[in-house]
Amino acid sequence: MTPPQRNSEDRTVAALLAPDIVALLDESPAHIAAETEEMHPADLADVAELLDRDKLQAFLAALGPARAADVLEYLDEELRTEFLEAITPRQAAELVSQMTPDDRADTLEEISEEHAEEILSEIPTEARQETEKLLAYEPDTAGGLMTTEFVSVSADMTIEDALENVRAVARSGRREAMHVIYTTDTQGRVVGVMSLRELLAAPSGAKISDVAWTEVVSVAPSADREEVARVIANYDLVAVPVVSESGHVMGVITVDDVIDAIQEEQTEDVQKFGGMEALDEPYMQIGLAAMIKKRAGWLSVLLISEMLTTTAMQHFSGELELVKALPLFVPLVMSSGGNSGSQATSLITRAMALREVDLKDWWRVAARELPSGLMLGAILGVIGMCRIASWQWMYDHKVWLGYNYNPHWQLIALTVGLSLVGIVTFGSLAGSMLPFLLRRLWFDPASASAPFVATLVDVTGLSIYFVVALLVLHGTLL
Amino acid sequence: MTPPQRNSEDRTVAALLAPDIVALLDESPAHIAAETEEMHPADLADVAELLDRDKLQAFLAALGPARAADVLEYLDEELRTEFLEAITPRQAAELVSQMTPDDRADTLEEISEEHAEEILSEIPTEARQETEKLLAYEPDTAGGLMTTEFVSVSADMTIEDALENVRAVARSGRREAMHVIYTTDTQGRVVGVMSLRELLAAPSGAKISDVAWTEVVSVAPSADREEVARVIANYDLVAVPVVSESGHVMGVITVDDVIDAIQEEQTEDVQKFGGMEALDEPYMQIGLAAMIKKRAGWLSVLLISEMLTTTAMQHFSGELELVKALPLFVPLVMSSGGNSGSQATSLITRAMALREVDLKDWWRVAARELPSGLMLGAILGVIGMCRIASWQWMYDHKVWLGYNYNPHWQLIALTVGLSLVGIVTFGSLAGSMLPFLLRRLWFDPASASAPFVATLVDVTGLSIYFVVALLVLHGTLL
Repeated sequence: MTPPQRNSEDRTVAALLAPDIVALLDESPAHIAAETEEMHPADLADVAELLDRDKLQAFLAALGPARAADVLEYLDEELRTEFLEAITPRQAAELVSQMTPDDRADTLEEISEEHAEEILSEIPTEARQETEKLLAYEPDTAGGLMTTEFVSVSADMTIEDALENVRAVARSGRREAMHVIYTTDTQGRVVGVMSLRELLAAPSGAKISDVAWTEVVSVAPSADREEVARVIANYDLVAVPVVSESGHVMGVITVDDVIDAIQEEQTEDVQKFGGMEALDEPYMQIGLAAMIKKRAGWLSVLLISEMLTTTAMQHFSGELELVKALPLFVPLVMSSGGNSGSQATSLITRAMALREVDLKDWWRVAARELPSGLMLGAILGVIGMCRIASWQWMYDHKVWLGYNYNPHWQLIALTVGLSLVGIVTFGSLAGSMLPFLLRRLWFDPASASAPFVATLVDVTGLSIYFVVALLVLHGTLL
Repeated sequence: MTPPQRNSEDRTVAALLAPDIVALLDESPAHIAAETEEMHPADLADVAELLDRDKLQAFLAALGPARAADVLEYLDEELRTEFLEAITPRQAAELVSQMTPDDRADTLEEISEEHAEEILSEIPTEARQETEKLLAYEPDTAGGLMTTEFVSVSADMTIEDALENVRAVARSGRREAMHVIYTTDTQGRVVGVMSLRELLAAPSGAKISDVAWTEVVSVAPSADREEVARVIANYDLVAVPVVSESGHVMGVITVDDVIDAIQEEQTEDVQKFGGMEALDEPYMQIGLAAMIKKRAGWLSVLLISEMLTTTAMQHFSGELELVKALPLFVPLVMSSGGNSGSQATSLITRAMALREVDLKDWWRVAARELPSGLMLGAILGVIGMCRIASWQWMYDHKVWLGYNYNPHWQLIALTVGLSLVGIVTFGSLAGSMLPFLLRRLWFDPASASAPFVATLVDVTGLSIYFVVALLVLHGTLL
């Protein structure tokens, strides 16, 4: 089957192909494997997702176990789990045995423990033990991300022998992470690294140890995925070895798994910044009850904290009654604090995630946020004062929209203007310092969400507003 | 120089090495190249960043042009620009000539146009033309990300000839993206792709066309970097070819450049979500004035929009004066709308970025957000009513903190509770629909920032609160 012209909307390609596949399934299923052999498994997975559930099993069966395992790796997580739980453990074992060890472990992690154990018991002993070892690591750590298939050669081999070795492994059909080759000493400890390309470029007759780089960038099995991503990105690697304390390579993490990890991490960070627990599942797939649970917690905490604004309002209720214009600007000044805080927090949490700023840089950040906040507050203060002056002018000149802030509208304007300076400065400082505080207390700085900061700043902002009002209006209106 | 034990804090490694390097520079600069030859250029760049500016040039000179170019590629952008502008155009040209074409173009793009042209004029003709071609592409597109060095072989070659070819290229020292090899027809159009590993595994005597995959996943030169990242991530590639309309490979984008692009894109999205223009520079490096400018715009727009809350408050000022308890809960109900909106927006913008939801899914999302919003609003409403009931109870029983919402505290509680249901529902719906609306209008959905949503919801939320109050309190307090 000639693949149609590729374009960015893969779903369209899949949608075009799905009817042909259905027709083939009915007429001559034996031809499916040959007709689709040049297609990328990611595209076949898109096709598979469009098929009816009863056709899906026939389709994967027609592809044969190795190819079906490739397609399963790219299939939507929920559909893959459903499929593997629906077929017999023996059939499922045949499929997952064909996967790379890391994908096999990831796949089994997703399905129910009972099913996973039944499937594991049908897998050949060696592969089963390997999988069980990988399943023992936390999925978000280097150990949980790595595959145990990789190529290593002894450092004292000649280039020719090593190349023969590598060709033999490549031909064996096992699907190692083969862009990079590790060299080991006689105790099996890693002593060097070279790319397949460097092996090819090496002069005939040389020894591996003459060519390999002795500086091996590696990660510990317990390193978390953010750390792995940082190492891969920092050194521009296509794979990073996971090395034990004794210096042995335990596995290799390839860049494609790191990209997936970066994207998951970023999704978590964005959702936390939005003020909720990370969903851990695609938006359209998570159950409504589960989603409400993840959202209700933070919303309730924020509501309860925000009740302090009511307490503040109650405290100043006398002033609010005396000066009728005072309550009118409460939402305005409050929200400006939240907005400036949200800016500062997003800047600093991101800079922390990228390691542009570190815990010890807090005072440098404060030294930037203080003048920024004052300047931004001054800009907003002037705008706020202009608003009051122009509405008052419109009222005095009987223009539509005008409003009377008298007596002493100038003092009301001054109160709003000065409050904005104070609140925006406080918002910028509080918003930028909160991630530092959270990290110092060993929380995730990404938990410093926009709503969290806004709530923090709201309560203080209100107090700033009332105190400024007391000072400015003292002796006239209050 | 034996590299110290590697760990996650590369800065520490660099800090340990920097004094040794300084000592060597003073004593025997000729040995620097040999002593550091096993070190990764990323680590040498960390060292270079710690040196005094006058030592930096001596250090790079001691490394020799090829190695110095490697180090420059990993150097902090600002420092690299400063360095290249400080040395003579001829010296700079010698260095950038050693870079891969994509890094050379990126480097020249950063420095002032005048300097860049002087340096370009000193580069050999072929490399200059190549660089000028790359500079013509927008930096955020596939054309701007690609390198023009890659390996392609004719589809009718034998495996042995192709391997010899590849080895010759590898030995030539040019630094192609060599994990993947493209095969071309007699007109030079791309017809297949294979990994270096597949080339090695191929049986002797076979032809390239027997082994290569005929389905080539590629991108157009005008594709934006998000699209490139999606293709690389979707197909688990280490490189993707940039193919012209006529079917020729124009260049290759390697996965390391895509990771950088993903991270930059993510930084932009986070900063936009925080309610500001993307900084485009690291937080600690951007000038204070430039940063204030990027933040002031949105803050001012938000302030001006938020002035509608003042208008709403003015409109209902009669009711506010009549019912003293009414203003007390304005901050509370307003912020709850903003918080629920911020959650919904972060969920949907991220799901859009990952292509989990598409423009046409808007009604599916609305159908999820409506019940979620009602449920979340009900939860918050109950909490809010409990707050009022318990403060009233405390007042009646003369407990500290109590407050008197009488007459008719039950109606005040009902007003707050019902308003929260309405406002949270509206917040969830508005927050989730805003990214769709922005995308429909061809804006970036990531511009739907938390402050933007909060402002949108604040004004409506206030109106909901006042209308509910009018309905509930009609005939008693109003």
